[in-house]
Amino acid sequence: MKLIIGMILFEEVTILDFVGPYEVFTKIKDWEIKIIGLGGKKITCNGSLKIEAEYDISEIESVDILFVPGGYGVNEVILNPDFLKELERLGSSANYVTSVCTGSLALGAAGLLQGYQATSHWRSLDLLSYFGATPNPDRVVWDGNRITGGGITSGIDFALDLVKIIEGEERAKEIELWLEYDPKPPLLTGHPRIAPKEVLERVVKNTESSRFVRENVIREFLKNKQDK
Amino acid sequence: MKLIIGMILFEEVTILDFVGPYEVFTKIKDWEIKIIGLGGKKITCNGSLKIEAEYDISEIESVDILFVPGGYGVNEVILNPDFLKELERLGSSANYVTSVCTGSLALGAAGLLQGYQATSHWRSLDLLSYFGATPNPDRVVWDGNRITGGGITSGIDFALDLVKIIEGEERAKEIELWLEYDPKPPLLTGHPRIAPKEVLERVVKNTESSRFVRENVIREFLKNKQDK
Repeated sequence: MKLIIGMILFEEVTILDFVGPYEVFTKIKDWEIKIIGLGGKKITCNGSLKIEAEYDISEIESVDILFVPGGYGVNEVILNPDFLKELERLGSSANYVTSVCTGSLALGAAGLLQGYQATSHWRSLDLLSYFGATPNPDRVVWDGNRITGGGITSGIDFALDLVKIIEGEERAKEIELWLEYDPKPPLLTGHPRIAPKEVLERVVKNTESSRFVRENVIREFLKNKQDK
Repeated sequence: MKLIIGMILFEEVTILDFVGPYEVFTKIKDWEIKIIGLGGKKITCNGSLKIEAEYDISEIESVDILFVPGGYGVNEVILNPDFLKELERLGSSANYVTSVCTGSLALGAAGLLQGYQATSHWRSLDLLSYFGATPNPDRVVWDGNRITGGGITSGIDFALDLVKIIEGEERAKEIELWLEYDPKPPLLTGHPRIAPKEVLERVVKNTESSRFVRENVIREFLKNKQDK
């Protein structure tokens, strides 16, 4: 029997969050990938790239692995009770509940990370606390059947890690070799831990307003929930 | 004035070849990305993901940077004289002629790598010789204004490197930090140089038939050219 992985798309998804793992998962013949959106099936990503979801989330009965990528569009997901309800439904019966980048905030809003350790993009990591999760700055965080990846490019590490656990090390090694995942980041600044202070400060400053908006979205979500 | 980067799509493109650089380039406000296909604008990638090209290649007068990703579909590109003619046209006036993975074979077939050093996916690297290029196993290879990346995931390194040269180190550092490109490949087998011998042998064996098909495609291309 095929193992079904449900990969969620939404407007303004960060396309690399999605495609990093997607490319890994397509290499496993025994995994059936379902590309799932909400409502309209044509999705515009960060940038202007348009991609297509194959299913509406309401059409999907269950998945073995639930995967949620991140992006600016996570704000809209957090304020979309219908989508969250569907995420919660799929997540509650999935064998693995997974995300990359700020997809963990969507899992959190759907109530799927309550009491779990989880990671996210470094600029959103602490926001996980709003959902009862414990922020963990590791690149890939496993806690029970919750597996979350950090920012954007971590999706490749996350996916190989997941394949390693489910399909075995040998299969994961082959895929890592095929993908030539022997990275050489040219600047060596890919995490706040290693970035020069002034670069970090610039990026923090430049993302102050979007961070502010996101935190307010989460507060609005929590308030709406409390009011119910 | 905006710098125009023309990113080429075709059927059975390896989506991560394209999206790694795409995600990097979207972060630069002064670069205008044009997503370019040939003929039909709906593209089915490796796997089943459908994405949309925004322009037909014949609509594009010129680009500052020409970028070609790879994938199984490169075979079809190599046997498509119309597409190659358009590639050659755009490449001959571009400031930078670039590729990731087997995109370099398409550049080669368009006559754009004659006499240059270039790289490709490790399984196709030596095939570059058919096009008068000198295979170089580095992850990102610069030779004049030809910049080629190795297999699939190298597109992230390639794109950051290109941004570093054109927009400066500080901008590239910020993007690397935002993308959390602080990789931790879980298996440490991402290149023939470091993969265990038996893993390498398995992958070589499993790709023998597709490698055979590709080499024959290139021979057919060269024969057609000679017959003209």
